Amino acid sequence: MIRRLDHIAIAVVDLEAAIARFVDDFGIQLAGREDVPSASTSTAFLPIEGTQIELIYPIEGEGPVAKFLAKRGGGLHHLCFETDDIDGDMQRLIKKGYRFLTDAPVDGAHGTRVVFIHPKSAGGVLIELAEYSR
Amino acid sequence: MIRRLDHIAIAVVDLEAAIARFVDDFGIQLAGREDVPSASTSTAFLPIEGTQIELIYPIEGEGPVAKFLAKRGGGLHHLCFETDDIDGDMQRLIKKGYRFLTDAPVDGAHGTRVVFIHPKSAGGVLIELAEYSR
Repeated sequence: MIRRLDHIAIAVVDLEAAIARFVDDFGIQLAGREDVPSASTSTAFLPIEGTQIELIYPIEGEGPVAKFLAKRGGGLHHLCFETDDIDGDMQRLIKKGYRFLTDAPVDGAHGTRVVFIHPKSAGGVLIELAEYSR
Repeated sequence: MIRRLDHIAIAVVDLEAAIARFVDDFGIQLAGREDVPSASTSTAFLPIEGTQIELIYPIEGEGPVAKFLAKRGGGLHHLCFETDDIDGDMQRLIKKGYRFLTDAPVDGAHGTRVVFIHPKSAGGVLIELAEYSR
């Protein structure tokens, strides 16, 4: 079951400049950084009241975020909902006709297991589901 | 000063289908609807822990959201931060080099005054600032 909006991810062409923008110009604090090898991204987390902004930048210019930036430039990339049952939600949504980018969840940031719904299944929005380990 | 993420807006090609997706498939409750003449949009609000999803659909096929849909199809459209001083933030950000889509705030949903930062000023992300009346 989906519990909350875990984060909204923004693909950025310059991670340091993007962090400076959100911290210095918009007054949102930087909580941490983490590399996510499964997505070939380096990420920065900026919590804001119940959810967070996640800035994502491609590691070594590879992976889907690098392709997104090459095609569109920086911009809103995906939404992530926290679920308390990623396997159950994935099976439930497959039965409703949703397609996923992988056959099973993979390791995400913060020790989560994550899976992405194909944007063609969700009105053009890339939606991630994430389950935190307890 | 920016206080919180007020909403994340998704442009949709079919408002009823999008509401059904978020309510029936993702379990997020619909809180209300409102037409926003200043943006030529019909909107639906779905709160989720401290922020909300806002589905936006062009009224009578006109306005910037209609253009967005014609160009890209449905998808993530903008972020909105709540501020307690929209005029002060606007002037402060202009001094830092940000450009805005209008010269002054206009009427938004829920009795807010809103203004949009040009995405070219913000790494490709369309960012709205909104101040609620007290």
